[in-house]
Amino acid sequence: MRIEIICTGDEVLSGKTVNTNFSHISRRLQEVGLSVVWETTVGDDRETLLEAFRIAAGRADYVIVNGGLGPTVDDLSQVVAAEAAGVELGLREEWLERIQGFYRARGREMPPNNRKQAMLPEGAELIDNPIGTACGFAVDIGRARFFFTPGVPREVRRMLDEQIIPRLLERSGMRSVVRLKRFHSFGLGESRVDDRLNGVEALAPDAAVKLGFQAHFPELETKLMVRAADLETALRTLEPIEAEIRARLGNYILCEDDDTLEGVILNRLEAIAGRIAVAEVGTRGGVGSRLAEADAGRWIFRRGVLAVNVAELAAILDLDPGSDTPKLAAAAADAVRGQAEASYGLAVLIGTGANPSEDGEGKVYIAIASAEGVVERAAHIVGGVDRTRAGGVEMALDCMRRHLHGLPVHEPIDFERT
Amino acid sequence: MRIEIICTGDEVLSGKTVNTNFSHISRRLQEVGLSVVWETTVGDDRETLLEAFRIAAGRADYVIVNGGLGPTVDDLSQVVAAEAAGVELGLREEWLERIQGFYRARGREMPPNNRKQAMLPEGAELIDNPIGTACGFAVDIGRARFFFTPGVPREVRRMLDEQIIPRLLERSGMRSVVRLKRFHSFGLGESRVDDRLNGVEALAPDAAVKLGFQAHFPELETKLMVRAADLETALRTLEPIEAEIRARLGNYILCEDDDTLEGVILNRLEAIAGRIAVAEVGTRGGVGSRLAEADAGRWIFRRGVLAVNVAELAAILDLDPGSDTPKLAAAAADAVRGQAEASYGLAVLIGTGANPSEDGEGKVYIAIASAEGVVERAAHIVGGVDRTRAGGVEMALDCMRRHLHGLPVHEPIDFERT
Repeated sequence: MRIEIICTGDEVLSGKTVNTNFSHISRRLQEVGLSVVWETTVGDDRETLLEAFRIAAGRADYVIVNGGLGPTVDDLSQVVAAEAAGVELGLREEWLERIQGFYRARGREMPPNNRKQAMLPEGAELIDNPIGTACGFAVDIGRARFFFTPGVPREVRRMLDEQIIPRLLERSGMRSVVRLKRFHSFGLGESRVDDRLNGVEALAPDAAVKLGFQAHFPELETKLMVRAADLETALRTLEPIEAEIRARLGNYILCEDDDTLEGVILNRLEAIAGRIAVAEVGTRGGVGSRLAEADAGRWIFRRGVLAVNVAELAAILDLDPGSDTPKLAAAAADAVRGQAEASYGLAVLIGTGANPSEDGEGKVYIAIASAEGVVERAAHIVGGVDRTRAGGVEMALDCMRRHLHGLPVHEPIDFERT
Repeated sequence: MRIEIICTGDEVLSGKTVNTNFSHISRRLQEVGLSVVWETTVGDDRETLLEAFRIAAGRADYVIVNGGLGPTVDDLSQVVAAEAAGVELGLREEWLERIQGFYRARGREMPPNNRKQAMLPEGAELIDNPIGTACGFAVDIGRARFFFTPGVPREVRRMLDEQIIPRLLERSGMRSVVRLKRFHSFGLGESRVDDRLNGVEALAPDAAVKLGFQAHFPELETKLMVRAADLETALRTLEPIEAEIRARLGNYILCEDDDTLEGVILNRLEAIAGRIAVAEVGTRGGVGSRLAEADAGRWIFRRGVLAVNVAELAAILDLDPGSDTPKLAAAAADAVRGQAEASYGLAVLIGTGANPSEDGEGKVYIAIASAEGVVERAAHIVGGVDRTRAGGVEMALDCMRRHLHGLPVHEPIDFERT
């Protein structure tokens, strides 16, 4: 089953817009066991678009076209689709009413040029877009079935998941469900995780489960993809492999599926009615901004102080500036906790080489203060200033997660010099 | 002159890697007056790659191929190029020596499989890659000249600017230089700037200058592109238009070319031996992290405090928690300045709706404290929580820039309710 994708639009072709729609569509198809063999990007030009449709129509089974369904004259997908399919455009009353209703619900009149969005090639199958005025549709051109989708990311994403993927799976003869399971880890490199997980796929029969990785430093995503006759079978097939992965990656797993490291921390704090305050040097505020993002109005993350260097941090928190850095980290965690009247104080001091006399390049000092005292972790993260900063921020949050879950705060990672 | 781009690689085709190489190449070509009509992405598959080369060879004048020049077996660009061109692969001794020297300089032996990177189609023109082991090359296939580039972003960017664009410009008969001038502004929407700049292109003869925009909220980029026989002529042609743009956009221009808003602030502070400290609520630390990023070890940005709400900010800075928000912003700017012994204190308090009883949704309060006293700015930024946050952070930095340059801190913007 040969699937191609055609992206249209001057914005994408000229590089003004980075083509994240394509990468999303391709990734999603892969996640359900389908794959794309060819992608084409062309501009808002009738001749080129027609050529692209004709080439794909001659060799593909399915083509997903993205973009060109808008109300303006440079949106050409319907008209070129009709020409390539050798049919006329016709008004779809049911979609025109949808557009009018869409505007009515917003207390506005439909602008006349939106009528164009209800003009589809004759005989086209309507593909519902529940959140926009661009109408998706499917039509046969040459030997291929073409699915037309709008360029608005949230619209195409929803149509892909709800309308197009089910049709493709059904047409592929794969009358089955696909389930994706994801683990997010920190501290083990991709090849080390690959080694550790050697053979886990064999725990499921018939090669039903596919293992994959996506590294985005400092985190690594481990993915399991299973296809089964129904959801219950899929879950049952995954179960022993999931358990094995949890056992083999152990404490390095930060969270699963859509969860985030900072979300896990805040959820745990919420559950125990805890609060947190943060002191940072050399992080560019990365720990505080991630916690603030995940806090989302819960007010668990109380305050963050970001200082230019350790001396300034000492001044902010009324600490002895003469202390060495590890001691200062511990004192800072304790002080910021006390001043914020929080249950936890988290301090992270990163020496990125900007002030090598005080903190060596790559050095990260982390301390967590609570009612039970202070826990510390130091590391020398290799790979340059940017990796030290990103890795140090991640490590600080990971230490906090470990501490909150009663796990050892200090476990060696692949990115540090030991 | 028809230019196509072919991107290769399973990582890109599967959506695992977002194709920023393509958008960069296309944008750069556009900036020098060339344009791309067709982009194709295919995987690391010999048949598909050959098909892609043959199709492009039959209709394009120039093709830029990105990726597939690495040392591993799935890197197929050279071998498929040779097949499509109907020639053999041959070892290029000069490039083999370059690779060996590259490894020698790093105290290592060249791994045997890197030899593959010195195998080029016979008769190929070598395109230098000064920063990597992948050798670029150009070869004729069909009616088109193909330029092969590596997938590593910094390598392809450099080769594009230094090697490929000059060749394309020369072959296009445009023996000329192209100059791009950029203005970054905040506060005026794209259509308003377009209106304000109506007719400026006419200040240059022969439509030599092209005006364009790129909006990335909250900032807007206004671009001038000029082509001329030489650099001096290009600069002379731009001069009256640049002056006119500065006059028409006035204080809304944040900076020009590669400068950033936060960089302008820190450069100005550096020039006057000034220092700055920041207090933030509702920003997720955005002001501090941008200043920290631009500070780059100059230690001008001394400290940032980020609080969950105004009450917590009052506690951190020892202020009267009973004050109303505008008063608290002023007091916070003054306090953080004093505590950090900085020349400037910048406070920004954003009510994003999380605590509507204290700060209404969309409300932004900014205060700048200096030896001369406190300057204030309040705004109601429309468009939802995310735009309020991004716009409020930008406005805080913009007020600081304006203040440092003696411009009015308060000028109405398009994104606020007045």
